[in-house]
Amino acid sequence: MTVENKKRADIFLIAREAKVSIATVSRVLNKTQAVTEDKKKRVLAACKKYDYRPSHIARAIRTRRTRNIALVIHSLSIFTKNVELIDSVEEKLESYGYCLNIFNTRLNIEKQDDIVNIIDERVIDGVILQGSGFTSRKMDRKVIEQLCERDIPSFLIERYIANKDMPYAAIDGKKGGELAAEYLLDMGHKNIGIITYPLKYTVLNDRISGFMKVLKKAGIEPGLMWELEVSGHNISDNEASIGERAGSIKESKISAIFCTTDILAISLINVLRSNNIKVPGDISVIGFDYHPLSEAIPNKLTTINNDLKKLGEIAVDNLVSRIEKGRFIKTSTVIEPALIERDTVRKI
Amino acid sequence: MTVENKKRADIFLIAREAKVSIATVSRVLNKTQAVTEDKKKRVLAACKKYDYRPSHIARAIRTRRTRNIALVIHSLSIFTKNVELIDSVEEKLESYGYCLNIFNTRLNIEKQDDIVNIIDERVIDGVILQGSGFTSRKMDRKVIEQLCERDIPSFLIERYIANKDMPYAAIDGKKGGELAAEYLLDMGHKNIGIITYPLKYTVLNDRISGFMKVLKKAGIEPGLMWELEVSGHNISDNEASIGERAGSIKESKISAIFCTTDILAISLINVLRSNNIKVPGDISVIGFDYHPLSEAIPNKLTTINNDLKKLGEIAVDNLVSRIEKGRFIKTSTVIEPALIERDTVRKI
Repeated sequence: MTVENKKRADIFLIAREAKVSIATVSRVLNKTQAVTEDKKKRVLAACKKYDYRPSHIARAIRTRRTRNIALVIHSLSIFTKNVELIDSVEEKLESYGYCLNIFNTRLNIEKQDDIVNIIDERVIDGVILQGSGFTSRKMDRKVIEQLCERDIPSFLIERYIANKDMPYAAIDGKKGGELAAEYLLDMGHKNIGIITYPLKYTVLNDRISGFMKVLKKAGIEPGLMWELEVSGHNISDNEASIGERAGSIKESKISAIFCTTDILAISLINVLRSNNIKVPGDISVIGFDYHPLSEAIPNKLTTINNDLKKLGEIAVDNLVSRIEKGRFIKTSTVIEPALIERDTVRKI
Repeated sequence: MTVENKKRADIFLIAREAKVSIATVSRVLNKTQAVTEDKKKRVLAACKKYDYRPSHIARAIRTRRTRNIALVIHSLSIFTKNVELIDSVEEKLESYGYCLNIFNTRLNIEKQDDIVNIIDERVIDGVILQGSGFTSRKMDRKVIEQLCERDIPSFLIERYIANKDMPYAAIDGKKGGELAAEYLLDMGHKNIGIITYPLKYTVLNDRISGFMKVLKKAGIEPGLMWELEVSGHNISDNEASIGERAGSIKESKISAIFCTTDILAISLINVLRSNNIKVPGDISVIGFDYHPLSEAIPNKLTTINNDLKKLGEIAVDNLVSRIEKGRFIKTSTVIEPALIERDTVRKI
């Protein structure tokens, strides 16, 4: 095969060689519609023979599509569970023949605006936006409206927003909080504490409100409620912050603590251990997230599954349907979280 | 501003409005060269006024550049430390005005070939390739040669390959192994064990060879050497695998164990604890990776820093220099790893 031949190869030549229509070549190369295995094989063999690769840029001009999808996340160093989201979105996109562009705001919410501009400029086929969770819903709504104005198919995850133009998938955080509370009550706990990061984070607020609802119904007031303002959101910072107040846990008659994130729960367990308080022997602990870290400690953490993998898959299925067929599969999906029963809550 | 006005805005209008040259507008928008703050402000204000966004696709045709960089990794679910790599590469790319495309082979090395084709087809400006580490160097070399043939600027990380066309940055794994061994000897340990995943993983092989070199020099034979073949590479699987043999650790007179990854070290520590063997009271443990998980356990793991963040930054600096100035800053960088002295090794 000479260089000249390679350059001359085009979709017409491939179709002729493979004895199929041009539309079939296009379907195979763009993975837009199902093609019989036999035809697919012939097309791929012809492409190989002539070393034919359709020009992506040329196609992008023609179709105004790049087969790039942007995933906007808010942190990887603090929300380390986002690694599961990236993993599932990339895998699902690949199955549809799309590529993943990562945008990370690093908790700088202003950056959402920049990202809209970048996305706009780059001609991206669609956007998966992780709800910011740490501001009012206004900010997310603004970004979403900007994306809608530009007619960029977008899908929101981890956040609900009343906006018919913005479909979403989210975990029902309230339901998760309820599950955690019901489980602790079932296990016989009546003196219950709560540790959380600030409740301005709407995701955490949902978790707490579900938890409190169940407690209230059972006529129980939490015996301890800490809203920790920590800088790093990492285990060492949390340990320092919880460590300062560890004495008051000892003094209280609390038998179980709900932490609104697994990182908090693991930090708490480490502090309790170093104060010779056994988990779950003396105090039971339940977390929230099903974070990879929850498996690292000697007694695996009992927790609630915040299934980002599932959210990523739903987002991609919907976005690709919207791009290729003009409509979302389902404009809203709320996933019921599940209790992950492991080793850190005991029956009393 | 009417829609018509928006559409009519072009680089000439922006230059006129901002009272700068067209080249300056281009420099500001493409971040190619430094521009005074004052001029930059005027250009951005003019762009805002006319709602001007340069067409990325049009520019891509003109320049054959997309400002997209591909990062090829091999797993996110098994090599969870890759989250640090993605984070640092994305941040550094953003500072240069580039976007990140993620490609994940999911340990299916055949997929490297597909990825070359995808990259080729999509017109990506450059590629950061994570050395596969689990095959011979041949496979990586093949991919690299394919990228070079296509004249796609590429940079290899976590692997050295003798190929003048392929610059790389890597952590000196042998040196890291030496550091671990020297530290254990300094702390008075003479009966030392080793636990590793299979040594066919060249990255681990390097770590072991450095470790053994120091032991040999000191006239010490390892008292235990386990090469674990585990399916999941996760903590639960490791614990099951190590747990089966925990008895022989008790029987041996070993006072310290080197694990070639932190995930192995954490799994080992959990097994030892559940067998009432204290770490570091009875047995000291040192890992390798400085994995986020190494902070989750009650006694923080002593380990060797496998600084993927640094590798990511070096890769981006080099690749952008190659793309924009035609040459890499430095064709090879080997980083000396550092000992992270924490709580799991004691002096005896």
